[in-house]
Amino acid sequence: MNGVGAHEVIIETPDHQRTLYELSEKEIEDVLWAYRDRIMDLKKDTRFRYVVIFKNYGRQAGATLEHTHSQIVALPIVPRNIVNELRGAKEYYEYKERCIYCDIIRQEQGDGRRLVYENPDFVVLEPWAPRFPFETWVLPKQHASAFEDSQKQEYSNLASALRVTLRKLASALDRPAYNFILHTSPFQERQSPYYHWHIEISPKLTPVAGFEWGSGFYINPTPPEEAAAALRDVSG
Amino acid sequence: MNGVGAHEVIIETPDHQRTLYELSEKEIEDVLWAYRDRIMDLKKDTRFRYVVIFKNYGRQAGATLEHTHSQIVALPIVPRNIVNELRGAKEYYEYKERCIYCDIIRQEQGDGRRLVYENPDFVVLEPWAPRFPFETWVLPKQHASAFEDSQKQEYSNLASALRVTLRKLASALDRPAYNFILHTSPFQERQSPYYHWHIEISPKLTPVAGFEWGSGFYINPTPPEEAAAALRDVSG
Repeated sequence: MNGVGAHEVIIETPDHQRTLYELSEKEIEDVLWAYRDRIMDLKKDTRFRYVVIFKNYGRQAGATLEHTHSQIVALPIVPRNIVNELRGAKEYYEYKERCIYCDIIRQEQGDGRRLVYENPDFVVLEPWAPRFPFETWVLPKQHASAFEDSQKQEYSNLASALRVTLRKLASALDRPAYNFILHTSPFQERQSPYYHWHIEISPKLTPVAGFEWGSGFYINPTPPEEAAAALRDVSG
Repeated sequence: MNGVGAHEVIIETPDHQRTLYELSEKEIEDVLWAYRDRIMDLKKDTRFRYVVIFKNYGRQAGATLEHTHSQIVALPIVPRNIVNELRGAKEYYEYKERCIYCDIIRQEQGDGRRLVYENPDFVVLEPWAPRFPFETWVLPKQHASAFEDSQKQEYSNLASALRVTLRKLASALDRPAYNFILHTSPFQERQSPYYHWHIEISPKLTPVAGFEWGSGFYINPTPPEEAAAALRDVSG
């Protein structure tokens, strides 16, 4: 490990007044293509092992720039949270011979209570054990470990899913501060049968306090079924 | 694992107007004895494996009660953050045959740049790679894995160290919100040669944002040497 890295800011629109979910589907799709193009370019640098792509919206979520933007950080090591996530997914795969995320999608589609939205390529749900109230995941239905390997129509359907989801959150929770994080596989582990890329969106409604910092466990007063019902009920 | 647990609130003083660092040394010592007595009692319940003792001060740190208080949560499993900390300490011990925290204390006493305060039983320092600006650790000089096994004069010197440290933080940072977390060993791993109980205090000065949530890595704009110098310079 050494101190090398890259930090880039994606300006999502030239318009200073609008935020991500106020953009058109086409504009959001362009942002997703910018993520993909930057990943493809950063992958050429053999010093990098991982890119974290994320968005901080609102002061409570850590945003310091007002103009709507996302950020890309390329790292020379795989971050510890991703190492843990990969380890968990791999253990499940070794046990079940199936991707845990594919199983989650299948189970949640069957159950329905935690489902928020679906289109031909994506499913949006509240995870079964969310850390935060209204923690929301966006997952591709087709198994794929790397975001940048998606098909053209998947970017278009992701733009649509993301727009609907962010608009629903804005409407149900009165434009909350939120973090959005792309979870994708490390550069050296492409086409893994056990990892499944996805986006995690966490509105900042409750502070993370001493118990969470001390334990790594999260107290969440809102059941995911209630959050999903509230999000299904508002228009996106 | 099952859903059993205990959650207790320690009221630190009957006086609604004062906060922890405004109490006398004797009053703070009484709070520490209350922690110890509650741990001793909770240990008798064989369903519990761990107690998290913590304090949230200020809204940004998650406090919802105004009257000064700390909290105790007894858990039927060892929390994941503590599992990770124990694992790291054990690996170091297997390699070096020394406690990593004892080595840190020795090294920081020799170096001096990250030291904040010392008394006969405790050392207060800014850790070498802090996650947060002004993250501050309070460690017993004598190796001990469990907080509740401390000697009587150690509680008195801890009260003194804690009072000075919290007053210095209040003065240097204008009464910041903070979390304070007691890190002690699990009930089943008492008298471990590799684990060393301590207190971690984290003022809430910068929000934890998408990069931190996505990676588990922390961006900290304040070098620990600068934080330690600022804390040494103010009276406690």
